[in-house]
Amino acid sequence: MSIAIDAMGGDHAPREIVMGALQAASLVHHKLILVGDPAQMAPLLPAILPANVEVRAALQVVDMGEKPTEAYRKKKDSSLMVCTRLVKEGQAQAMVSAGNTGAAVSFSLLMWRQLPGIHRPAIVSHLPSRHGGFVLLDAGASPDADPEHLVEFAQMGRAYCQTQLGRPNPKVHLLNIGEEPGKGNAFAKQTFQLLERHDWFSGNIEGNHMFADPCDVVVCDAFVGNIVLKSSEGVAELIVQTIKDEIPTNPWEKWMYWPVRQTMAPLKKRMDYAEIGGSHLLGLNGLCIICHGRSSAKAICNAILVAQKAIDTNLQTAISNTIGYSGE
Amino acid sequence: MSIAIDAMGGDHAPREIVMGALQAASLVHHKLILVGDPAQMAPLLPAILPANVEVRAALQVVDMGEKPTEAYRKKKDSSLMVCTRLVKEGQAQAMVSAGNTGAAVSFSLLMWRQLPGIHRPAIVSHLPSRHGGFVLLDAGASPDADPEHLVEFAQMGRAYCQTQLGRPNPKVHLLNIGEEPGKGNAFAKQTFQLLERHDWFSGNIEGNHMFADPCDVVVCDAFVGNIVLKSSEGVAELIVQTIKDEIPTNPWEKWMYWPVRQTMAPLKKRMDYAEIGGSHLLGLNGLCIICHGRSSAKAICNAILVAQKAIDTNLQTAISNTIGYSGE
Repeated sequence: MSIAIDAMGGDHAPREIVMGALQAASLVHHKLILVGDPAQMAPLLPAILPANVEVRAALQVVDMGEKPTEAYRKKKDSSLMVCTRLVKEGQAQAMVSAGNTGAAVSFSLLMWRQLPGIHRPAIVSHLPSRHGGFVLLDAGASPDADPEHLVEFAQMGRAYCQTQLGRPNPKVHLLNIGEEPGKGNAFAKQTFQLLERHDWFSGNIEGNHMFADPCDVVVCDAFVGNIVLKSSEGVAELIVQTIKDEIPTNPWEKWMYWPVRQTMAPLKKRMDYAEIGGSHLLGLNGLCIICHGRSSAKAICNAILVAQKAIDTNLQTAISNTIGYSGE
Repeated sequence: MSIAIDAMGGDHAPREIVMGALQAASLVHHKLILVGDPAQMAPLLPAILPANVEVRAALQVVDMGEKPTEAYRKKKDSSLMVCTRLVKEGQAQAMVSAGNTGAAVSFSLLMWRQLPGIHRPAIVSHLPSRHGGFVLLDAGASPDADPEHLVEFAQMGRAYCQTQLGRPNPKVHLLNIGEEPGKGNAFAKQTFQLLERHDWFSGNIEGNHMFADPCDVVVCDAFVGNIVLKSSEGVAELIVQTIKDEIPTNPWEKWMYWPVRQTMAPLKKRMDYAEIGGSHLLGLNGLCIICHGRSSAKAICNAILVAQKAIDTNLQTAISNTIGYSGE
């Protein structure tokens, strides 16, 4: 089995990507294929590559701000396109990219197509909470989804929770602006009616409660999901910064503030996207792990471990089975 | 001039509401009308009321979970309905309620109707940021708004910023899932096209950037706005709780952690909804301040000051003028 890594995607590519892959090499039992410009990667690589690492040349790069559809037409030899092709041809079982998210979604959708029974792919994102965290989907793959698609997201989220997080009977909540049935805009009301046919559906959940109450899977459309994700990131950064501003800068006083660092350590770990590494794009005929644009080597290494786990635990089969069993 | 106060609405009504009004009495130059059940309010009131406080009887209460349309038909003598009526009849120039938000929106919409040129009301919410904060609207009044309505929200938000926050030339951003024009779902794209005709429009803003970059007014639909607001609240509470969990409970060790309390004090102030007190429902023929359900006396007192400022600075006229000037 192999994992293709887009060495040229991300704010700190290729450096952090190559470093991350080298760190992961000793931790994984699959082959890692670093896809990118060999000339740019060469100075970052050891004279003798680890036995399970190889380099595949791709001379173009999809830029972070580039339009996905244009890039798809023009950048046939881009690192992202070559990764997607390796998975399509069965030479790799998963790909990892910290590049242009829209392009990663478009390329894999256009080249791999949806799993049978799935109409729209979804990005599944981990969020922390008082009860061991939860997953939110869609966090940004399909901006104009219909209520029917959120039922598919719910089923994919459940399969993900079962196989990747070891939660045997995950419950699904609909992100909404009130707890009671009948709350929300027209879209939320329609989605509620479709979801309530399933015994794993636990009703609506509000934005504050998902961080405080027990929940496994929270579904919403990509627009809401992406904004929730980024707002949460923004609030967390604002809070950390506000606290840091209060710490005196003179070294003598600063020393007395060590308990602040102490109390913030677990928070930092909990909030650090690099700890999780990357988010799965679910619902396609191939595994794609999407990383934060500013991914560090540590994040890339963890994302590769995420990919390995999905391969080893047959995430794709679990999703197909869930969709099959639902009879829809 | 008078301000009507819904003494029976809120998790801690009537106690905290009455206390808040009494606190505010010496700070305001308008009359305060406490509307509610006299029997329940009596034990909370001093023998001699402050000269600018009076009690108006209303024997019904709209419950927090009650359906607004049903309450509108059945609860003609509720504290909320009486407040709304006092404003309609010109006996009060503003009302303050910590009760059922949906009911407060419905009652004032049905009884007061929209200002000329406005089609949907919007709740304007203050959020903190690295640059002195910004206002977000709609935070929950009109769940099924059209792109045209967001242009009205933008104009109301500008008039609000100018008159209430003293920012002479407020810029407006559209909350979106990417910075570039052309990003987002169909709704966001249409809204962008309408907004870009105005010179005060500064383009899209992402969820994380609004907390980090300078911005004045951020517009979005009520569904997104309410979820952003509540998620932000949820993340902030999770972070504070995570930090608190790290502080040892034994008194001897706890003592050493005073710098943590120290660094968190300004954060607490910045995050405390009671500091702002309440949010304006904008766009109707009357001023309505909506408070958090769990409002304390301090929050109610501040909400009354918010109402007074809006009366004294002619917020309603400013909004009418803005809409008038736009020529739409």
